[in-house]
Amino acid sequence: MSDVVNVGILGKGTVGGAFRRLLNERAEMVEEVSGRRPRVSGVLGRKRGDFDRILARSELVVELIGGTDPALDYVTRALEAGRHVVTANKQLLAQHGPELVRAARKGGAQLRFEAAVAGAIPVIRVVQESLGAIPIEKVFGIVNGTTNYILTEMARSGLSYDDALAQAQALGYAEADPTEDVNGADAAAKMTIIARLAFGAPVKLDDVPFEGIEQVKPDDLAYAKELGLSLKLLGVAERVGEDAISVRVFPCFLYPGHPLSPIEGAFNAVMVEAPTITEITMSGPGAGGSETASAVLGDVVSVISGGSPLFEENARLRVARDVEMAFYLHLEVEDRPGVLAQIAEILGDNEVSVRSVVQRGTGDEAVLIMVMHPVVESRFEAALKKIAKLKFLRSPPRSIRVIEEEFN
Amino acid sequence: MSDVVNVGILGKGTVGGAFRRLLNERAEMVEEVSGRRPRVSGVLGRKRGDFDRILARSELVVELIGGTDPALDYVTRALEAGRHVVTANKQLLAQHGPELVRAARKGGAQLRFEAAVAGAIPVIRVVQESLGAIPIEKVFGIVNGTTNYILTEMARSGLSYDDALAQAQALGYAEADPTEDVNGADAAAKMTIIARLAFGAPVKLDDVPFEGIEQVKPDDLAYAKELGLSLKLLGVAERVGEDAISVRVFPCFLYPGHPLSPIEGAFNAVMVEAPTITEITMSGPGAGGSETASAVLGDVVSVISGGSPLFEENARLRVARDVEMAFYLHLEVEDRPGVLAQIAEILGDNEVSVRSVVQRGTGDEAVLIMVMHPVVESRFEAALKKIAKLKFLRSPPRSIRVIEEEFN
Repeated sequence: MSDVVNVGILGKGTVGGAFRRLLNERAEMVEEVSGRRPRVSGVLGRKRGDFDRILARSELVVELIGGTDPALDYVTRALEAGRHVVTANKQLLAQHGPELVRAARKGGAQLRFEAAVAGAIPVIRVVQESLGAIPIEKVFGIVNGTTNYILTEMARSGLSYDDALAQAQALGYAEADPTEDVNGADAAAKMTIIARLAFGAPVKLDDVPFEGIEQVKPDDLAYAKELGLSLKLLGVAERVGEDAISVRVFPCFLYPGHPLSPIEGAFNAVMVEAPTITEITMSGPGAGGSETASAVLGDVVSVISGGSPLFEENARLRVARDVEMAFYLHLEVEDRPGVLAQIAEILGDNEVSVRSVVQRGTGDEAVLIMVMHPVVESRFEAALKKIAKLKFLRSPPRSIRVIEEEFN
Repeated sequence: MSDVVNVGILGKGTVGGAFRRLLNERAEMVEEVSGRRPRVSGVLGRKRGDFDRILARSELVVELIGGTDPALDYVTRALEAGRHVVTANKQLLAQHGPELVRAARKGGAQLRFEAAVAGAIPVIRVVQESLGAIPIEKVFGIVNGTTNYILTEMARSGLSYDDALAQAQALGYAEADPTEDVNGADAAAKMTIIARLAFGAPVKLDDVPFEGIEQVKPDDLAYAKELGLSLKLLGVAERVGEDAISVRVFPCFLYPGHPLSPIEGAFNAVMVEAPTITEITMSGPGAGGSETASAVLGDVVSVISGGSPLFEENARLRVARDVEMAFYLHLEVEDRPGVLAQIAEILGDNEVSVRSVVQRGTGDEAVLIMVMHPVVESRFEAALKKIAKLKFLRSPPRSIRVIEEEFN
């Protein structure tokens, strides 16, 4: 085998461009991990170019055209000709998955499609590679970021559905024609793909009833808020009794404490339930261009490395000891003038900056609770050593690190 | 190649037993997914049996002895002899990972160890198979369930560290000798393994400073609670500048809204941050016997299927349409006697049971908010159709599903 893997790319759109850039950026790292260097052997636009020429030149075809025509024809021919295929095309998989699997088997090729479902969250990988190992009971979650953004904004700001949709469109979280997202059809296609893998069952897109969020009123969210409930558009695929599964998409209230309750904005999250593992929850941003390109490249690496990455340790990275952190500091002190000044002076001398300070209790109960801004740890430790020697401390100082980053 | 894969099992303890049972239970499903049926070719106890005999008979060796002696010798010999190895042994990997990778390369064998880190959460799989695809900036999380259980109980009930530890021991969340868990050493071993994979860097166990939770006082948690902070034992592996990484374990306060804040009890959770994917969060139960056995079997399936599962659709599962759900019902009604009685009668006739009902507003503003107990959907729909025809409704009824399950 050659040391180069020729990769044909079908699609010149946003995702196609993002993938091509990422592949070039990461080619060297992919070679280190997989032992082989990917090279773009050709790029086909939607309407032009010579597919046969790219097919002849490529060992692996990445399909990012979208839709089913001509994607179905191209992918089928590539697989039957023994070319591995990686695709982000959820409609293609939802409508023609079983025939594509047959084509892959016929050609002895791999078909991978992590990017078709839930953005950068590795749902397909986890469900697929768990299939033999654990009897999955239920896979469910938030698999459409547009609707989750709209519902989050309606709940947070009391916006109407129309206003929240307009805001999502303005911010790029919803397309000009949002129909497939808001009516649940997009989520239904994704759940079709997930259900087939989770249960090995021949689920068809038509088997999956779906409801969207167009009818949700601010009222519903207001009442729900009082009860602590949050509203999500859920996709559910689950076993029902011994011989059946149910696959559906619908808006649904969740009680507080449910692992999907805190998932807000354009995020996706999927839970997998099985007796042997209880439940696993995975969450991350929905499918933007770079998330999709990353998921596609992950599949490409899996194909190239044959499921068995090498783990060369050739990155020349030093292991650092001294990094920046924020700190909480708990000091039991004598309650008299000048105490805080002395502590503040020591901190200042070591360039440790105080974010907040509170005194609790008085007299023999006096406690200072301080939180520092992030600082190189050795500086804080130096200050702490000096503080520990202060006479007016009633007990040794206690410090605990604090992570300040804001999320969502 | 034969249609049978001979699997040698090293270890007769809790995990060894759980794995053996699971393998027998799932052998048929593994065959459907991978095309080959696993068969136990021998089981070796810690101190007895003939390793050479098992080695000669096995294509794949599952090491569940724990510790490094004799596990290091056995695993090295198996890999060098070209046997694939799956192990749950975190000390073995943390202390001898690089030499085992060399042995695997020498023998042309696969080495997999998902079960060594974070129980059933597929951290290794995700980090490993992402390595070529995305430049990981940071992997961090809660990788020890014992300490998270203790901290959760201290925060929830104001227990002292000693009392919370005793409770964890009584419930099986902490071992009789909890030292390695509570002092952070267990988490440090796991972070060593994760950091090597995430950054391809030659991290040694000694490079990873760790602090435990033995010094945490109920006071600290009480003050933190007032600020909305939660305390977790975090493992962090991150890039620092261009040429360095930092790998550490320490207790740390998290602000509300942080994805790791809601992770309570004996759960694990890991976040992966990279520019192209923002962040992915994965959470699930920590490593119990069945979670570990499941993770081991997942690796076995990956080895057998060569990273390319077949997805036979041979499960004969029906797709059910009518399942049980709870419902929220929003009715704008005329404010007069008998209204609720009529609605309740229709619901009762259809065997729909009411969990709660609240009236809001009066006169022309009167609204009934009802939540039902779970019911087969077709029954609720039948009731809803009749309710929609009631004369005293001021607008069409609105219903939304509710998930009632409690978590954690």
